[in-house]
Amino acid sequence: MKPSNPLIVLMTDFGLQDPYVGVMKGIITGISASAGIIDLTHGIDAQNILQGSLQLGLSAPFFPDGTIFAAVVDPGVGTKRKAVALVTEKQTFVAPDNGLLSYVMKTQRIEACFAITNPSCMLPVQSATFHGRDVFAPAAAHLANGLDPAALGNAVNPEQCVQIPFPENSTPDGGISWKGEILYADVYGNLVTSFTADLLGEEKEKTAAIRMKSGMFLPFHRTYGDVDEGEVLVYRGSSGFLEIAIRNGNALQSLGLKPGDKLTLQNAIDI
Amino acid sequence: MKPSNPLIVLMTDFGLQDPYVGVMKGIITGISASAGIIDLTHGIDAQNILQGSLQLGLSAPFFPDGTIFAAVVDPGVGTKRKAVALVTEKQTFVAPDNGLLSYVMKTQRIEACFAITNPSCMLPVQSATFHGRDVFAPAAAHLANGLDPAALGNAVNPEQCVQIPFPENSTPDGGISWKGEILYADVYGNLVTSFTADLLGEEKEKTAAIRMKSGMFLPFHRTYGDVDEGEVLVYRGSSGFLEIAIRNGNALQSLGLKPGDKLTLQNAIDI
Amino acid sequence: MKPSNPLIVLMTDFGLQDPYVGVMKGIITGISASAGIIDLTHGIDAQNILQGSLQLGLSAPFFPDGTIFAAVVDPGVGTKRKAVALVTEKQTFVAPDNGLLSYVMKTQRIEACFAITNPSCMLPVQSATFHGRDVFAPAAAHLANGLDPAALGNAVNPEQCVQIPFPENSTPDGGISWKGEILYADVYGNLVTSFTADLLGEEKEKTAAIRMKSGMFLPFHRTYGDVDEGEVLVYRGSSGFLEIAIRNGNALQSLGLKPGDKLTLQNAIDI
Repeated sequence: MKPSNPLIVLMTDFGLQDPYVGVMKGIITGISASAGIIDLTHGIDAQNILQGSLQLGLSAPFFPDGTIFAAVVDPGVGTKRKAVALVTEKQTFVAPDNGLLSYVMKTQRIEACFAITNPSCMLPVQSATFHGRDVFAPAAAHLANGLDPAALGNAVNPEQCVQIPFPENSTPDGGISWKGEILYADVYGNLVTSFTADLLGEEKEKTAAIRMKSGMFLPFHRTYGDVDEGEVLVYRGSSGFLEIAIRNGNALQSLGLKPGDKLTLQNAIDI
Repeated sequence: MKPSNPLIVLMTDFGLQDPYVGVMKGIITGISASAGIIDLTHGIDAQNILQGSLQLGLSAPFFPDGTIFAAVVDPGVGTKRKAVALVTEKQTFVAPDNGLLSYVMKTQRIEACFAITNPSCMLPVQSATFHGRDVFAPAAAHLANGLDPAALGNAVNPEQCVQIPFPENSTPDGGISWKGEILYADVYGNLVTSFTADLLGEEKEKTAAIRMKSGMFLPFHRTYGDVDEGEVLVYRGSSGFLEIAIRNGNALQSLGLKPGDKLTLQNAIDI
Repeated sequence: MKPSNPLIVLMTDFGLQDPYVGVMKGIITGISASAGIIDLTHGIDAQNILQGSLQLGLSAPFFPDGTIFAAVVDPGVGTKRKAVALVTEKQTFVAPDNGLLSYVMKTQRIEACFAITNPSCMLPVQSATFHGRDVFAPAAAHLANGLDPAALGNAVNPEQCVQIPFPENSTPDGGISWKGEILYADVYGNLVTSFTADLLGEEKEKTAAIRMKSGMFLPFHRTYGDVDEGEVLVYRGSSGFLEIAIRNGNALQSLGLKPGDKLTLQNAIDI
């Protein structure tokens, strides 16, 4: 059955300078003229599957049930890896099986997963394969037309899909300390950490802080408005994670921290 | 009553690298599946309310009557300021009350203004508030669905809204000289000035020029074609303001001028 | 007759930082509320007609029949050159007559071409003309509404349109050597050459290579997966041309090559 308002959301690391994303939309429109197309972002750092997986999984809940996501971040272009369609309780995701769907799998209830192998759901073979155009765009468009995901290819056990490890929070000493790391920086230089926002209880947040490996502490504050210009703060980011920022500044450039750096969150510091 | 082709136009300083704009569109589509969404630009310089206000006010007349604009440029995120919905004779604008609507207010006839406070028109409270996603996107989408703007919250006296001062043209000596400044640079390095294009009468434009504080004059020309490569010109920009450019060059980098620098326009120079 | 799902595709060198593209969409929507609008790209290098012409011609086949393209890359803004509407067997293109349509003309069967001169298909004259907004956007929108292209203006002989020369492949010595050049670099620093992918026969590709003017050879490989990180390869790009890349690197920055540099392709090297 064809959805009444099929919506396809695209996320890639292609950027917008070249026509790659535009061509994907051309393919989609040719197959499903009534599908709406929204860009989640095409600014994922090149080949950064961790960042792409998080952005996709964190953003998906803000889109309607039934949304079809086509996501492409793919260091392995030209090498063998499956293309899959993951059906969750809420939405459907087509993507390379390289870990890009890890965070969606962690946060949505999975109903089924299929390999995308049916040639009639792809573009005829080109002189060079561009999977965003030749595989993922047409698959998403056929799903928008109401195609049963099972028609894309054989069922795959979702547990066999490639998973990337997410930094886990550990609680070594009675719930007041966790180990984590910096996941990625946004365009403003704000540093998104692996600490989920719910780790900080309201009563203890006044004394909470993140410890960098240098031994320095970064204090928690509720909003930018609580610190002066140029001052650092840890706050609950709109990403759902704690973030490190400098008011009207760039934390990435100023703090000497980068993605992957280890951090410790202390809910009640006792320096 | 639901408009037949509701159109929502977005303008922010979020850029397109992160998923912020994509998520706003997800929220809009979830509330109003039939709304068309157009990006005016997300490249406003970070927190530059003057630039955002001008771009919004100058661009709005090129969109159809009934268009709903959601604009977010907001240095005060996390601090207190109202969110408002401004209804003009032509269009509707949801934005923070921080001056971003100043130029629209100056150029369109205002019919009403409302604070956006009705929780049923917002997203449920998140761990961290992202007003673009939680307040402005849903408000715009509900308006696209035909919601009466008065349902968003209490009426606000538009004259109580925050206004930012625009550089005014003064005419000290008989209509041939005005004081102004550089408002912003576009991506090509063209410098948009505060002098409106109608200040230059056709008969006197041949001798018109802009004086920089260095004492040098920049000559007016009708088009790029009137100067050689690498030469400077002042011309009537498509923005509606006089602009300073270098043919096949970058005036921002070459002239040592920047936003805020004072200028004098002389309609008939007598050097 | 109005097409049921009119689609307008935009390609410019305007970038997305300024509101130029957004304003074009406002004009289109005001004239043709039901037209779908897709961005092919707005990241063509400023005034690079060769690159724009190739990207347009290579991308158009991936869009549905009946698509209307509005393309603007225009070094001659403000000087005299025609605006034209080119009708091919498949699609329609509105653009400046400056060579931007050369590659479309070379690859699609031309049916007719018209000058765009009818004032009722343009915006009223502004204080400054911005052809993307005032000429091309409204022309495309009227075509989306079903306007007969002949109503835009007088017929033009397509052979009179400005053509830019494309680097031609020559075959000096028995089909194993061709002369060509670098056309442009994409955002990853991959170098797109003027050699079409079909020049390399499958049997000889193992010994094929591109010779740079330095005398060094770059080897052909089928995919990125065939070389190690940091190694260079020539491969069949998704553009339809052979491309030069460095796996997880930037060929533009590393190889000392740039657009316009001469190359020789040898199908069977004998170093």
